[in-house]
Amino acid sequence: MGKTVAAFTMSLDGFIAGPNDEIGRLYKWYFSGDTDFRVPGVDRVFKVSQTGADYLKEEWSKIGAMVTGRRDFDVSNAWGGQLILGVPHFIVTHQPPQEWLGEESPFVFVTEGVETAVALAKAAAGDKNVGVGGSQIVQQCLKAGLIDEIQIELAHMLLGEGIRLFDNLADYAIDLEKIEVIDTPDVTHLHFRVVK
Amino acid sequence: MGKTVAAFTMSLDGFIAGPNDEIGRLYKWYFSGDTDFRVPGVDRVFKVSQTGADYLKEEWSKIGAMVTGRRDFDVSNAWGGQLILGVPHFIVTHQPPQEWLGEESPFVFVTEGVETAVALAKAAAGDKNVGVGGSQIVQQCLKAGLIDEIQIELAHMLLGEGIRLFDNLADYAIDLEKIEVIDTPDVTHLHFRVVK
Repeated sequence: MGKTVAAFTMSLDGFIAGPNDEIGRLYKWYFSGDTDFRVPGVDRVFKVSQTGADYLKEEWSKIGAMVTGRRDFDVSNAWGGQLILGVPHFIVTHQPPQEWLGEESPFVFVTEGVETAVALAKAAAGDKNVGVGGSQIVQQCLKAGLIDEIQIELAHMLLGEGIRLFDNLADYAIDLEKIEVIDTPDVTHLHFRVVK
Repeated sequence: MGKTVAAFTMSLDGFIAGPNDEIGRLYKWYFSGDTDFRVPGVDRVFKVSQTGADYLKEEWSKIGAMVTGRRDFDVSNAWGGQLILGVPHFIVTHQPPQEWLGEESPFVFVTEGVETAVALAKAAAGDKNVGVGGSQIVQQCLKAGLIDEIQIELAHMLLGEGIRLFDNLADYAIDLEKIEVIDTPDVTHLHFRVVK
């Protein structure tokens, strides 16, 4: 059975984007190494460290479906109509966008909340993992006990302000068990299991 | 010339204490290893990993003076009247506590702000480093460009709520350079240089 994994690049002060969704500074590490790195569904070649590339390639190859939120969908402009990692995307929203409905759409919109979205994604992923994106979706999933692992690419910087990944979690303290820590010059990969 | 180092145990979600200054859960890693670990000025023996103990013993031996804030002083009940790490303490406050003034007091109270406190602490530390504690003091020092290094003992947990170390820093984005990452079962030691 696959795991549900929240995976994000985050600054040391906990931000996953600037106040206006800027991610340029945070993702500098995507251009900091000397090893070519491709994200399926993204038409661009990045440059990261060899260890980082090996690690991410392996982890991302385990993802069989994605759950994310409407904000993520809108901010990314529907990822240019592509499926990141080439896997089915389940997008939690109250109001599915009319222009992306229909048989041709690569996206599935889920109006019944995160539990349903994760259940549908797990069914689609089979033995593989479900990746969870969108800070509000992750927060809802953490509160519902739906996250099995947290995978942080800790960017070596303080952003000072922006969108926090771990917010609105009062009364939801959670212990983590280290799975792996991978130390590269510009980013530290932190991989944890949620203790349930 | 010594460095000015902000050193804290912090949860993955950025908290250095709970909403009522609780630190029990956050500091579980002080009791998680099998190597005796003593903090000079604290009458207690902790148990951490061998690598963690070696690292902290070395880093803390470099500290020659401390700067912290009145809140830290009050919450800790003046550290029981002891000097943590056995070094001079400079406490930034608007109103020095009368009961701790006088020749016998182990503490120096500084009413002129963080710049003065850091300058006094540097003079006292000589070639050694100055440790900076107290989240508000660290934030003021970061804004004033006074911090050279950040040393985070990343506790493997989400606290959900409490006192954030990196807060109130809008417009103060800072790049960090990795000095060292030390990976132990219950805490990840992250040591960064502030890029100025």
